[in-house]
Amino acid sequence: MPTYQAPLRDFQFILDEVLGLGGYSNLPGFANADPETVAAILEEAGKLSEEVIQPLNRTGDVQGCTLNEDASVTTPDGFRDAYAQMVAGGWTGLSFPEEFGGQGLPNVVSLALNEMVSSACMAFGMYPGLTAAAAEALIHGAADEQKSLYVPKLVSGEWTGTMNLTEPQCGTDLGLIRSKAVPNGDGTYAITGQKIWISAGEHDFSDNIIHLVLARMEGAPEGTKGLSLFVCPKFLPDDAGAPGERNALKCIGLEEKMGIHGNATAVMQYDGAKGWLVGEENKGLRLMFVMMNRARIGTGLQGLSQASVAYQNAAIFARERLQGRALTGPAEPDKPADPIIVHPDVRRMLMEQKSFVEGARAFALYVGLHGDLEHAADDEETRQKGGDYMALLTPIVKAYLTGEGFANVSRAVQVFGGAGYVEETGMAQFLRDCRITMIYEGTNGVQALDLVGRKLAWEGGRPLGAFMAELEAFAAENEGVEGMEPFAAGLGTAKGQVNAGVEWLMENGLTDFNNAGAASHDFLQLFGLTCMAYMWAKMAKASLGRDEDFYQQKLVTGRYFFERVLPRGASHLAAIQAGGEPVMALPAEAF
Amino acid sequence: MPTYQAPLRDFQFILDEVLGLGGYSNLPGFANADPETVAAILEEAGKLSEEVIQPLNRTGDVQGCTLNEDASVTTPDGFRDAYAQMVAGGWTGLSFPEEFGGQGLPNVVSLALNEMVSSACMAFGMYPGLTAAAAEALIHGAADEQKSLYVPKLVSGEWTGTMNLTEPQCGTDLGLIRSKAVPNGDGTYAITGQKIWISAGEHDFSDNIIHLVLARMEGAPEGTKGLSLFVCPKFLPDDAGAPGERNALKCIGLEEKMGIHGNATAVMQYDGAKGWLVGEENKGLRLMFVMMNRARIGTGLQGLSQASVAYQNAAIFARERLQGRALTGPAEPDKPADPIIVHPDVRRMLMEQKSFVEGARAFALYVGLHGDLEHAADDEETRQKGGDYMALLTPIVKAYLTGEGFANVSRAVQVFGGAGYVEETGMAQFLRDCRITMIYEGTNGVQALDLVGRKLAWEGGRPLGAFMAELEAFAAENEGVEGMEPFAAGLGTAKGQVNAGVEWLMENGLTDFNNAGAASHDFLQLFGLTCMAYMWAKMAKASLGRDEDFYQQKLVTGRYFFERVLPRGASHLAAIQAGGEPVMALPAEAF
Repeated sequence: MPTYQAPLRDFQFILDEVLGLGGYSNLPGFANADPETVAAILEEAGKLSEEVIQPLNRTGDVQGCTLNEDASVTTPDGFRDAYAQMVAGGWTGLSFPEEFGGQGLPNVVSLALNEMVSSACMAFGMYPGLTAAAAEALIHGAADEQKSLYVPKLVSGEWTGTMNLTEPQCGTDLGLIRSKAVPNGDGTYAITGQKIWISAGEHDFSDNIIHLVLARMEGAPEGTKGLSLFVCPKFLPDDAGAPGERNALKCIGLEEKMGIHGNATAVMQYDGAKGWLVGEENKGLRLMFVMMNRARIGTGLQGLSQASVAYQNAAIFARERLQGRALTGPAEPDKPADPIIVHPDVRRMLMEQKSFVEGARAFALYVGLHGDLEHAADDEETRQKGGDYMALLTPIVKAYLTGEGFANVSRAVQVFGGAGYVEETGMAQFLRDCRITMIYEGTNGVQALDLVGRKLAWEGGRPLGAFMAELEAFAAENEGVEGMEPFAAGLGTAKGQVNAGVEWLMENGLTDFNNAGAASHDFLQLFGLTCMAYMWAKMAKASLGRDEDFYQQKLVTGRYFFERVLPRGASHLAAIQAGGEPVMALPAEAF
Repeated sequence: MPTYQAPLRDFQFILDEVLGLGGYSNLPGFANADPETVAAILEEAGKLSEEVIQPLNRTGDVQGCTLNEDASVTTPDGFRDAYAQMVAGGWTGLSFPEEFGGQGLPNVVSLALNEMVSSACMAFGMYPGLTAAAAEALIHGAADEQKSLYVPKLVSGEWTGTMNLTEPQCGTDLGLIRSKAVPNGDGTYAITGQKIWISAGEHDFSDNIIHLVLARMEGAPEGTKGLSLFVCPKFLPDDAGAPGERNALKCIGLEEKMGIHGNATAVMQYDGAKGWLVGEENKGLRLMFVMMNRARIGTGLQGLSQASVAYQNAAIFARERLQGRALTGPAEPDKPADPIIVHPDVRRMLMEQKSFVEGARAFALYVGLHGDLEHAADDEETRQKGGDYMALLTPIVKAYLTGEGFANVSRAVQVFGGAGYVEETGMAQFLRDCRITMIYEGTNGVQALDLVGRKLAWEGGRPLGAFMAELEAFAAENEGVEGMEPFAAGLGTAKGQVNAGVEWLMENGLTDFNNAGAASHDFLQLFGLTCMAYMWAKMAKASLGRDEDFYQQKLVTGRYFFERVLPRGASHLAAIQAGGEPVMALPAEAF
């Protein structure tokens, strides 16, 4: 059975020593985020993850969710209780404003919590994850009475939330949504249609489930400009705000999936369900994107979370499994064989995972901190930079952390050999669960197109310019610093490759959009590698000259990343510069 | 539900037009392998795969195998009948010598058959695959009476075979095998021990199952030099050679695996089972490697086979699924959206798959043909080259085709988006099934070490020298040929990178074996890319100047490979040259 150990020391290092969270204590919401408090919170969160949530993971996979005849859904044994503990501990409201009952901590602290919960049991973590995203969307766009009715209950976790976008004929292309909203004459709407792949769409965790649903009003324009967002509670709140009459919506099926069996992926049927418009008519997609952007960071974290827990178990296995002898002579001659961690190729796989997990963790928190600063910073420049970075880097968190997360879970399975392929060890489940992260909340291809087609030119290229200038400044500042030379030099090379990619896109992507589309995946990978390199350079800087093993190991791991991972950037640049022609040349029927 | 179409035109192209199979008709075994006969055979094999075997794939996954109370195993519905049809059609003996009842065709024809059967249902294809490997080992090393007793029945498929190596404490490191063989005094041995992960270890296909078992005789040396190979039939053949008394061996468990549910992965208990020594005492491992090498080519084919069928389904989905509009303007304005194949990133994923599948297919058949020539060629030079190439290239077929096969199945899943993650479409199964191929028959890490640690220096480097000279000659011959310039130039670059890798290994791998071990994965990838480039260059040569779409599409696909895939070689060379130090620097407890 797999184990999980919350990476508390790593969180502390990144938050305190690399990102300097404590230095923001003058900002609203950061006052309680002093290092000691954050450490104490994360320690408790770690315990919850290790002791309460992690034991659910295998059960959830084996049992899955059950749709009952009355359209209710039973979640796997223990899920409901564990959720109740999360609610009782106030974990669901960690980073929500105090006015809605939250604890008002910066969201970056929640990201650390979410990584741990998701490492412990990804399928479980999706329930509170979607609830938080729904609360965020309502805070952002709902009318005051809607906020006061729903948000506190979502923040407390008493009620949960979902996002309803996909229909059978539309996933990525939401302009094809057919669900209809017809005015009831009393200010409410009757929602009719079918939504599929609705994560946490039905379950037994909470007294009510608040569905946020994209639908089209009668007479609204076609495409995405005719979509409005509606809040459709499973039970209509009565005058006291308590769950009352059952709404005309229900779960009519659960998908049988490759993984995340513990999460109910529901087919939702709306038969004239009562819904309330959230925000403006026909402006629903914009609001849904508030939810979606949060969910995209969360999805990136999921990719990282599975790589993290899979890596931990691979490392344990590699230290314990005796097989073969070190190439340089027996390492433990008194044993029948050496532990497989002596083998360089096993090491390579572990170093790949370690350098990814620790770098990706830093990157997710770095981006998350900028998300906090977007709202909390006391100067316009920092707020603007926060928003810019969120826009620019969210697709990278989503796609790079899930694509590489999956690749690294696969490496962890490989360390286990045959034992990784049998379900008993739990390694196969990490792989099966993790695979969805590259798909949902906008496929990784959609992220790449978002980055190349929208985000590079966002606000006239301001976010890109600011981020590249930050890297440039860091590299320049450190090129003469003893011990930082290889990091500064490698970062300079990576930055140069990103610039070359941007230049190529500007010269070739605007005249032929297919050049941009064909380059998008490789550009995102190149940019992702560069972000990781920047994180490793920052972590190296924070570790330099410090003797403790922890810091020395960071320097070694960072060096591994720069010497053995970062060179992949050149091949991505070559692919970008090869252009769209070889990608697009064949007619569709040739495939 | 997924479909499968046998790639008959591609087989014909590779066998006839690229490899020139028809030109070997003077050789024993090749006389019946004229293009028309081979085409007719493969057409029938294609029908069998499409119509009889492919429909079993999903059933096999859903039902799996059942271990009954009497230690018998029931395979999924339809498996037994389909196997009976294979036997009745003589498919199991296609490439075995006529003296054993086979049809005496070159093995390269069987490889095409095996790819199709495995694409149709990988779990099913493992049963005849292991039987063929067992027959091969017996033909190679057994005494005449053993051969005449077992081989014809394995060739006909009346009986099936298995290979028993793994035990709980040993997978890769067979020196740790504990199973014991004690002389019964009558020339037979009593085998006692437990073997795990025995594919096709028990089932309901055949009257008898012939287990080839590695065990240690009393007093034999420790390690791999004390292992002998025994043939242990499930039923002891009576005097007439018919299945008689039940042997003291049985299946005591089936593994619950991530995939290949249709194949029974057995825990086999030997309780003094009667076995006969095959070949010489303590020389069992060498014989087992005959079986293993065949199985490694077969495993490479499995990786390719899953990528092939997954790609076919991804291409169909991409042409049918309507979502979004082409970046360059609506392609099918009369439809609600364009088929997703208009999107460059979807194309990129399809081109990756297509260029892999077609290149890997050519490579597997190229290596397989050399395996035939090793035995059938009428001059010593060609025979020697055949053996050399088999030795050098088998680890590449196994590891490159499975690692990249899995990566490409994952791309096919990605083309499907959310539909790829639900089990209903069958895409998830391809991913789950394919994952084992990177692990069994020697993990891909073991293949890489075999290549770098043994095969490069094999016979004083003769195989490597011969292969590189062949590439050199091809590149030189074509550098001035119109239309071949980019292929010749790219091949030259790739060859130069392989040479640089070899040079680095010679300078650094011999003084510090960890340098070699740490480089092995990247060297195998670099070498694999170069082999693929050579295949694409050969296919381009065979297509040049021919107008039909088929050939023009080969040229485009080859160009894609050279422009967008092959550049990855540089990053592998950089990783090789980074050396083992950053891989090995951390102490084991730092992970």
